[in-house]
Amino acid sequence: MPITVVGLDGDDTLWHNETRFILTQEELRELLHRHLPEADVDAHLARVEMKNLGVYGYGVKAFTLSMIETAIQLTEGRIPAADLEVILGWGRRMLMEPTELLDGVEPAVRELSERYDLLLITKGDLFDQEGKLARSGLADLFLGVEVVSEKNAGAYRGILARRGIKADEFVMVGNSLRSDILPVLELGARAVHVPYHVTWHHEHVPEESLPREGWYRLESIAAIGEFLGSIN
Amino acid sequence: MPITVVGLDGDDTLWHNETRFILTQEELRELLHRHLPEADVDAHLARVEMKNLGVYGYGVKAFTLSMIETAIQLTEGRIPAADLEVILGWGRRMLMEPTELLDGVEPAVRELSERYDLLLITKGDLFDQEGKLARSGLADLFLGVEVVSEKNAGAYRGILARRGIKADEFVMVGNSLRSDILPVLELGARAVHVPYHVTWHHEHVPEESLPREGWYRLESIAAIGEFLGSIN
Repeated sequence: MPITVVGLDGDDTLWHNETRFILTQEELRELLHRHLPEADVDAHLARVEMKNLGVYGYGVKAFTLSMIETAIQLTEGRIPAADLEVILGWGRRMLMEPTELLDGVEPAVRELSERYDLLLITKGDLFDQEGKLARSGLADLFLGVEVVSEKNAGAYRGILARRGIKADEFVMVGNSLRSDILPVLELGARAVHVPYHVTWHHEHVPEESLPREGWYRLESIAAIGEFLGSIN
Repeated sequence: MPITVVGLDGDDTLWHNETRFILTQEELRELLHRHLPEADVDAHLARVEMKNLGVYGYGVKAFTLSMIETAIQLTEGRIPAADLEVILGWGRRMLMEPTELLDGVEPAVRELSERYDLLLITKGDLFDQEGKLARSGLADLFLGVEVVSEKNAGAYRGILARRGIKADEFVMVGNSLRSDILPVLELGARAVHVPYHVTWHHEHVPEESLPREGWYRLESIAAIGEFLGSIN
């Protein structure tokens, strides 16, 4: 079947996301090292985030709450409230930042939108994702937006069923093997991996665990239009 | 047109929600009064919540961040981090609480599901709402779930269009005049108001601002099946 619908991931596929977490995490490390020069802030934060994932889900608000928890725990409650107010401010700043598109995204998505129905399929915080899309200038190019709490096969199956899309006419494009590629292949749809230069540890899967067929890799999203034309 | 699709609000229509915020807010008041016996905690928190609404959106994580901000500001940074850790714990507890259905909801929704397609239409935090529905035991009775960041006419219009539902075959049932009734009437659909005993100040609208026709009020959701049969 020819492809008629293209699903696009948002974070780190269309716009920078992980970078803003990494930069904020650096600031947290510096702030806490003023109290505890030896503390392994990154490791503690990663543990707190994993513990909270099942309660908070993904997103900036969850990250902010986990940073505050990390700061209190590592300093054993000795951190001044003023420092925690600074952390609150980082979270608000992240939520208000302009959406910074990756290189080549705007013309690539515009070209795709002339040939395919486009769905933005992202996970995380609904409010934040809608805000990022609105600020991206790309919203009008998408037929629909789907924000899901977890990108697993069931979530993709639900999206395709609700919209009457057959798996073999759908292709998903994204930077995460775990969230954008593996579950889509499970449904018998196709997927294109466009790696980002950094990936959150939680999103890592060993490449050997992927099927050998049905997915492709592109170094840049700029070439996606030409590439989809070639596999159709 | 006969009604074929019933939209149901979740928070304070199917399950208790505002109550858990009110109880937690009481705890915050007590905690802060230990530091500042005279502080008007409720008024300050309300201001912080309204200021943050455009950045955080709705939900428990937003509320938790606003409680922490309120505590720091009111004490001018003198609150010990250990107290802020207690506030973090309240947020996690709210997110993990069992879903407590309102009286009569389970049989009423089960009966409706035999005669209509049911959509759960809620606003707020996607992850929290999905969790509440999963814990409610009602998930299988719904054809679909729509979590939107704001319940305005555009959001309802999008849901109906995406699902191919005509306005005059749709009725929305909920406790908020502002979110469940007014925007639905704007589209020419019908709405049933089932008041909850407390309503968040942000959800208040003067009743005079509603159209005189097209909506109804029921004292309890238990009677919804019989009522919809009578207006059809």
